[in-house]
Amino acid sequence: MNDAAYSREILAAVPSVSTDLAAALQHKIDTKTKPLGALGTLEDLAKQLGLIQNRVDPVCTVPTIVVFAADHGIAAEGVSAFPTEVTAQMVANFLAGGAAINVFARANGMGLKIVDAGVASEIPGAAKPLDRKIRLGTANAATEPAMSDAELDAALSRGAQIVDELHDNGTNVVGFGEMGIGNTSAAALILSLLSNTPINRCAGRGTGLDDTAFARKLAVLERVVKRVEKDGGLSTPWDALRQCGGFEIAMMTGAMLRAAQHQMCVIVDGFIATSAALIGARVSEHFLPYCVFAHRSDEAGHGVALDALGASPLLALNMRLGEGTGAALAYPLIAAAAAFLNEMASFESAGVSDR
Amino acid sequence: MNDAAYSREILAAVPSVSTDLAAALQHKIDTKTKPLGALGTLEDLAKQLGLIQNRVDPVCTVPTIVVFAADHGIAAEGVSAFPTEVTAQMVANFLAGGAAINVFARANGMGLKIVDAGVASEIPGAAKPLDRKIRLGTANAATEPAMSDAELDAALSRGAQIVDELHDNGTNVVGFGEMGIGNTSAAALILSLLSNTPINRCAGRGTGLDDTAFARKLAVLERVVKRVEKDGGLSTPWDALRQCGGFEIAMMTGAMLRAAQHQMCVIVDGFIATSAALIGARVSEHFLPYCVFAHRSDEAGHGVALDALGASPLLALNMRLGEGTGAALAYPLIAAAAAFLNEMASFESAGVSDR
Repeated sequence: MNDAAYSREILAAVPSVSTDLAAALQHKIDTKTKPLGALGTLEDLAKQLGLIQNRVDPVCTVPTIVVFAADHGIAAEGVSAFPTEVTAQMVANFLAGGAAINVFARANGMGLKIVDAGVASEIPGAAKPLDRKIRLGTANAATEPAMSDAELDAALSRGAQIVDELHDNGTNVVGFGEMGIGNTSAAALILSLLSNTPINRCAGRGTGLDDTAFARKLAVLERVVKRVEKDGGLSTPWDALRQCGGFEIAMMTGAMLRAAQHQMCVIVDGFIATSAALIGARVSEHFLPYCVFAHRSDEAGHGVALDALGASPLLALNMRLGEGTGAALAYPLIAAAAAFLNEMASFESAGVSDR
Repeated sequence: MNDAAYSREILAAVPSVSTDLAAALQHKIDTKTKPLGALGTLEDLAKQLGLIQNRVDPVCTVPTIVVFAADHGIAAEGVSAFPTEVTAQMVANFLAGGAAINVFARANGMGLKIVDAGVASEIPGAAKPLDRKIRLGTANAATEPAMSDAELDAALSRGAQIVDELHDNGTNVVGFGEMGIGNTSAAALILSLLSNTPINRCAGRGTGLDDTAFARKLAVLERVVKRVEKDGGLSTPWDALRQCGGFEIAMMTGAMLRAAQHQMCVIVDGFIATSAALIGARVSEHFLPYCVFAHRSDEAGHGVALDALGASPLLALNMRLGEGTGAALAYPLIAAAAAFLNEMASFESAGVSDR
């Protein structure tokens, strides 16, 4: 890996999705053997895939989930219901195939890559993730910036290079997941700072805080917001990552932007992945049309984040797990959208009378 | 087939889902490596599958979609945007593999059976559906009952026997679809009569009626409601089928009830399938726990029907196609629910610290 391979400027230079085929795609959709518009959201999805790939017969190849794991210094403030060691333990669980994302990726025929972006504890067991570790967890954002500019640049670049490898391997649909005790705090902070929304509307109960612990989390996050303001606020959208963390969100942001540059369909999972997509959207006005939003999370701030992006997820299953689980569950709908565009008969070819 | 094999009394005798394993299933779900409740609706679904199959390790085997096709005498009143011949043409399209339901069933690894329950026109081409035809379409419900009691009994019994064959073949998850020009009218009437909801709240634009045609449809349906009232109203929930049709909805109702008796998971698709499930729920208080509702249709009356059943579909993709398309698209979520219950590690087995 080359930490200077992709600068912020290079990553932000996402080309606009081509609209050359928009009319041809719409015509193809409208002449399929079904009432006009009767496949609803799947029609929008088929058209989006066609525009992303710039072809009227888009296909989904080597669909893959990438899970970025890292720890957060802010966890020391007691913002999570689980201890920090759970990040490393869950990475071991991913590597052993026993987590929800393993099950869902397998069930839906997707590949799965686990990336250590900055896990603090030793990962138990013999199996190891892809080592792209920046450091043993971010600094505590309640007292100082979560990472340095150099660390942020390294994380963005490493994320982009992982996507280069996927692209070389034939992947054109990629979903991103994460694991990191404390990362709903980082995502809430990013959202609050980038959308000018009070932090109490952006933060939620994460993995299941009770009232007392949730009040403590809110107080900690308010301290971070004040510290960042005192530090001069954000100079760019990227700066939200430097100030709040985490390494997994930064790496995911670099990966998402690079995926768009490769004309991949980017499946955006829940709250944390949406905070990465929000940064992507703020650094490139052309980024969002590459994104399919998978699942509306039960985490409180996700609705705020989706509204900030004007995004409507495909699924709403009251989940709040992360790991990319929503992306893996939504993938069959994306594959089905491509399939109907390619495989359904037209009124003419099937000899069915149009209205 | 034996038209006397399953009487209405036999079909209504659905045994209650066993709740013996409810606590064991909940414990198994709660000790998986995820925050409590973090898989949301998928956890409910996993538990429901376990209760239906009465085992803590439910599996989905030989998942199948059955599409029932039939014509409706009421179509002569101009209640649809498409001509009646489209029913037969679409059956030919199903048999040739070119319809949306073919694509989605194939994409998600489901079998597909096409059943002629009462198609009026000749089905073009050499391939033929399973012939369970009652008659060449129902009578016109605007002027007389859509079918006789004997025809209703035959349709119910034939539907049940199709499910017996699926059961013999190892199917334990079945989704039902339909094709029949005019059948949103029949479904709206069934819903209105069984739920005492004004017909104008139950009827929608079907395959795409404009304002004028929709006003005509509503006027026709109001005539049917008045005729049925004059005829003495409904003596039983089954009577809604006799009065309003159609053969495909009646056959689907028999099939759904029999599927519950075989401890199958019944995937209920959109508006028309929900009208069949409504009859099932009205003739057996034990029927609904076997049902998984797949998709909230864009057809206006579907919300009313779902409310009448207290049902929340898994998907809401603005579709209004029928054919069982919603059921086929929802199936991967059902399979994923069974998979996480069987394949995910527990906190203990994975060595992950619980909170």
